[in-house]
Amino acid sequence: MFFASDNWAGVHPGIAAGLSANAGGFSTAYGDGDLDSAVYRRFSEIFEREVAVFFVATGTAANSLSLAAYNKPGGIAFAHRESHVIEDECGAPEFFSGSRLHAIDGALGKIDPHNLERAVSRFAPEIVHWGRPTAVSITQSTEVGTVYGLDDISAISDIAKRFSLPLHMDGARFANALVALETTPAEMTWKRGVDIVSFGGTKNGCWCAEAIVLFDLDRAKQLSFLRKRSAQLFSKSRFISAQFDAYFKDGLWLDTARHANATAARLAAAIEDSATAKLAWLPQANEVFAVMKKTQAEKLQSAGAAFYDWHKPHGFDGHIGEDELLYRFVTSFATTSEEVDRFGQLIAG
Amino acid sequence: MFFASDNWAGVHPGIAAGLSANAGGFSTAYGDGDLDSAVYRRFSEIFEREVAVFFVATGTAANSLSLAAYNKPGGIAFAHRESHVIEDECGAPEFFSGSRLHAIDGALGKIDPHNLERAVSRFAPEIVHWGRPTAVSITQSTEVGTVYGLDDISAISDIAKRFSLPLHMDGARFANALVALETTPAEMTWKRGVDIVSFGGTKNGCWCAEAIVLFDLDRAKQLSFLRKRSAQLFSKSRFISAQFDAYFKDGLWLDTARHANATAARLAAAIEDSATAKLAWLPQANEVFAVMKKTQAEKLQSAGAAFYDWHKPHGFDGHIGEDELLYRFVTSFATTSEEVDRFGQLIAG
Amino acid sequence: MFFASDNWAGVHPGIAAGLSANAGGFSTAYGDGDLDSAVYRRFSEIFEREVAVFFVATGTAANSLSLAAYNKPGGIAFAHRESHVIEDECGAPEFFSGSRLHAIDGALGKIDPHNLERAVSRFAPEIVHWGRPTAVSITQSTEVGTVYGLDDISAISDIAKRFSLPLHMDGARFANALVALETTPAEMTWKRGVDIVSFGGTKNGCWCAEAIVLFDLDRAKQLSFLRKRSAQLFSKSRFISAQFDAYFKDGLWLDTARHANATAARLAAAIEDSATAKLAWLPQANEVFAVMKKTQAEKLQSAGAAFYDWHKPHGFDGHIGEDELLYRFVTSFATTSEEVDRFGQLIAG
Amino acid sequence: MFFASDNWAGVHPGIAAGLSANAGGFSTAYGDGDLDSAVYRRFSEIFEREVAVFFVATGTAANSLSLAAYNKPGGIAFAHRESHVIEDECGAPEFFSGSRLHAIDGALGKIDPHNLERAVSRFAPEIVHWGRPTAVSITQSTEVGTVYGLDDISAISDIAKRFSLPLHMDGARFANALVALETTPAEMTWKRGVDIVSFGGTKNGCWCAEAIVLFDLDRAKQLSFLRKRSAQLFSKSRFISAQFDAYFKDGLWLDTARHANATAARLAAAIEDSATAKLAWLPQANEVFAVMKKTQAEKLQSAGAAFYDWHKPHGFDGHIGEDELLYRFVTSFATTSEEVDRFGQLIAG
Repeated sequence: MFFASDNWAGVHPGIAAGLSANAGGFSTAYGDGDLDSAVYRRFSEIFEREVAVFFVATGTAANSLSLAAYNKPGGIAFAHRESHVIEDECGAPEFFSGSRLHAIDGALGKIDPHNLERAVSRFAPEIVHWGRPTAVSITQSTEVGTVYGLDDISAISDIAKRFSLPLHMDGARFANALVALETTPAEMTWKRGVDIVSFGGTKNGCWCAEAIVLFDLDRAKQLSFLRKRSAQLFSKSRFISAQFDAYFKDGLWLDTARHANATAARLAAAIEDSATAKLAWLPQANEVFAVMKKTQAEKLQSAGAAFYDWHKPHGFDGHIGEDELLYRFVTSFATTSEEVDRFGQLIAG
Repeated sequence: MFFASDNWAGVHPGIAAGLSANAGGFSTAYGDGDLDSAVYRRFSEIFEREVAVFFVATGTAANSLSLAAYNKPGGIAFAHRESHVIEDECGAPEFFSGSRLHAIDGALGKIDPHNLERAVSRFAPEIVHWGRPTAVSITQSTEVGTVYGLDDISAISDIAKRFSLPLHMDGARFANALVALETTPAEMTWKRGVDIVSFGGTKNGCWCAEAIVLFDLDRAKQLSFLRKRSAQLFSKSRFISAQFDAYFKDGLWLDTARHANATAARLAAAIEDSATAKLAWLPQANEVFAVMKKTQAEKLQSAGAAFYDWHKPHGFDGHIGEDELLYRFVTSFATTSEEVDRFGQLIAG
Repeated sequence: MFFASDNWAGVHPGIAAGLSANAGGFSTAYGDGDLDSAVYRRFSEIFEREVAVFFVATGTAANSLSLAAYNKPGGIAFAHRESHVIEDECGAPEFFSGSRLHAIDGALGKIDPHNLERAVSRFAPEIVHWGRPTAVSITQSTEVGTVYGLDDISAISDIAKRFSLPLHMDGARFANALVALETTPAEMTWKRGVDIVSFGGTKNGCWCAEAIVLFDLDRAKQLSFLRKRSAQLFSKSRFISAQFDAYFKDGLWLDTARHANATAARLAAAIEDSATAKLAWLPQANEVFAVMKKTQAEKLQSAGAAFYDWHKPHGFDGHIGEDELLYRFVTSFATTSEEVDRFGQLIAG
Repeated sequence: MFFASDNWAGVHPGIAAGLSANAGGFSTAYGDGDLDSAVYRRFSEIFEREVAVFFVATGTAANSLSLAAYNKPGGIAFAHRESHVIEDECGAPEFFSGSRLHAIDGALGKIDPHNLERAVSRFAPEIVHWGRPTAVSITQSTEVGTVYGLDDISAISDIAKRFSLPLHMDGARFANALVALETTPAEMTWKRGVDIVSFGGTKNGCWCAEAIVLFDLDRAKQLSFLRKRSAQLFSKSRFISAQFDAYFKDGLWLDTARHANATAARLAAAIEDSATAKLAWLPQANEVFAVMKKTQAEKLQSAGAAFYDWHKPHGFDGHIGEDELLYRFVTSFATTSEEVDRFGQLIAG
């Protein structure tokens, strides 16, 4: 019953096999091997247009370099107050990009377009003291398990375009959102005005497979140097390619994401049915948030369930009693129905 | 006949097996899992003292963060003119550390202690205009396949200590030097005054396994934040631990290094015996440098041998004819005697 | 009727004379001249202990380098949401220090100690993802013309000390606060736990005279290199010393500050008495904030009064009508009672 | 007999008077005042085309921001090995620009075009490991008192243009070179392919008057934000404008430079005529270098002459005996013929 995070899981057997299958032989290093090229082409197919792909080591790196690719001196990037780039990356986005991050509020992890518009509008291009807007970043699916609908993305994107700002998508859980929306990568990104994506594979079944997907090919050379200067260019890049190769094969990535979302729904239902916990809000991807008594949570943890308490997000108007806390449960490709059901029995009361 | 670089090789079967063996189950993320801890302890055993270990994504990251851990504003780090940190990392060491790199000359890839002493002595602590020395960095084995002897390391270290400077070792090919010297990790590092090591496993048989080994535990907390802020903290760190676990098991890492060095020696002998090429200097680890006619090199390359021409290093006083160039050949765990012998036959004349 | 900012004024005649008096002759450069040394000693006398003094070019530089002197990787500095370091310095504090700035709310420009405590408490030293607190910064007098009382400073400082954080004071209007509190520099700073001060002379009658005053002499060497590396070390530093020399002579700086505060009070009284505007809150130093109709403001501006509208600060609970705005009026050593009275007549109705 | 540096002098009486004349009244801050605008126009007249002017605090700032205005990630700027940006600015150019500085050799302070071409040619645009050339910087007059002739500048500029690199001129002693060449600012800069100039007034008679002169107006907005983010935007910018206003009036700046050069020539003649010292090379601007016995130098210093010993520049092939050193003597607007003659008598033997 490991619901602490989707990065507590190991690697999907199909991806382990992919790595082993590519372990031998010799290949050009630094992203120029045959398998690398094949995987780049696969990304272009998946996104239905030519894209530039940059493997990096971590989601933090993908986010930081995406913002760096668009920064200007005095730059300000707008992101949700509880976004990973603001809360959980130790200042890496600011370090790599030189941008400051400006927090925007919005209910349940999603930027409220009106708040965004108001915040961006306050800046005036000629007043150097204040700095200047340079990017907008959204997380899909969000840090609290919600998902921007296609219209939500368009609403954010319209504002970004009006102010000539690029739109970045932190897709650490890209696949979970994609299958939740039952849409295509193209529809969820560039067709809605997204310019650059942190495309995460790690949480969805890989060991370590993160890529920046860039739609504006004119910036590719800049990003090549940025990545190397940022110590993010792997020598044996084949080990990333091999993971993505297996990840995309026969839609494995969509299957693992669907599985994670389905087990999250099953977990949510178990909580809903329980006498001892209540759902904080409806999960849309693979993260479930629930309110329960601390004593109850400790009992569950003692019984072998791993999960963390969480801070109350902006816009949550549910009740949390004095002896209660908000808790987060994350499922992944490796979560089994059996362990969800076992947890359901424990929580039932 | 792939002699282009040791990072063109794939992964050793033992390491591939190690990854597969650890692919399942759940584990705490971000370097705090059980396997991570076991591997940290293994490092301490290997270095015969308690060390702090930081996995990072690339050798460039290990070097850059090692220098960052010791930098001060206005800092200057001294390294060989042809060192990887100066020549091949696109400014990453300067970007992460804020240090400037000061090039020191020395024959065949090794810092000349007299040149180092003269360069460091020129700075005066009260003259802010000039900046101030903050570190010395050596590469072991060097970029041109030579090895600092234990006394060489002591000579550099004595100067560093006299000026209160930490000594960093870029050990991208640590194992190759270690087995060449037939010494122990402790003897080659902290017992000779080395303070921090970039410990590379990638070139010697791993997919991607680089670690910073820090002897001064007081700096560990600082380096923890530096690593995260530098987007170098892996979530599923198990995939690095699993590689190092297999790497160290039954001395695999020493075997692969010995094999690479031995095939390099075999290659050097073939060149020595040939009529068409001559050894530029004696190889001490797994890199061989030879002078030959460009036409001859092209013939070999057409016949399927992969290798690059190289710039003439400082202190090389051999003759290179007008129609000749210097070429580099690198061997690895994956190089076979057969392909060396095949190359030997081609080059024989 | 120039109330736009105290930096619209020129220079006090006594300071102009001081510059002229020191224009001739030769002097050691880069802060090591006789007059420089004399002025450093004067600072020590004024602060009643030995201090290290660093002249810099701008208040932004003083703030940025003060934070830089105490930063650590992943560092977070806490400041009021409307503080100059957050709102008006184009990211310079982040650029120089590497710190992120964390906004704290509090009524009328002053950090609320409870908010500060809650914000700092949220961080946990072992969780690198979140970064770590490294400094607290307060502005005295504040951006909205209020003043931290000595007990207010102690309250902030107690929290800072509890979490081992240095306390920085942005004293762009240090003198205005000092005379408002009728206290001494020592009482307003280190005796209340302040560790480093941006000591501003420019707004209070100098051309360009900003200094960092550092109480912890152990950090002085670090700051020397930081300043030079930040391109803030003047060659003919005498021109700053000469200004401060005249500034401190016979208490000129206190007189100019008292004059500015008194004209602000006179202006506030005129507004209070008027039929067309109302004071937003009581001014405590040399900045007055008033609410009036936009049409009225435009009439005053047409009649020759220079002043700006201002954003509503946190904690302001006064009423601003739909056709009204909040306006800021700043006085200085150069503001005359005559122009205040002239303005008073205009505003009377 | 103050020959230590031209920044040991105070300020020219005409400039002191200019400051006093502009001390009163009110003016828009941050570079937008009437006097500021008038001085910007004056720069455009002097350079015979529209230029963008940015006042900054120090020559180090002017150089650093000039390079920053043109940097790209992985950027490398080429400058003479003994240039101020490499030797004397504590890493500020690297800090602000993110560029690494690549040292080029050349006799007596001037970049040798062949060396420059060879160095730039070595880089290949597709190899990210090495970084990429982004700028060339020359110093006029040089750090050793020599002057690039107009053809010298063209030769450097031709190479820069061939590689699409901007050319920066560090003009800390711009006026001294200008009058030495008897040419115009336009001829010495943009007409020869210079793109951006650090225009120094401080060493030539001002207190503190440094400006970046940018010919490419498209980059002006970028530089505005860079300057503010770098804490280099003065509030009472009038104090810089007032200095430049007086500096340019009736050609004062050319007179002070001619005076400094003439006294340098007089000093050189005295050394030439002496029995105890010999000129190291012919001075072309306001710096004189001589070789003499240490004992003789100490005798002169005891007698009241201030000057420093200097490191031997690249390409100096004169003889320096074992008990001798190389010494630098700098003259300025404030150097009198009388003190030069007094020194001449002392040195005569």
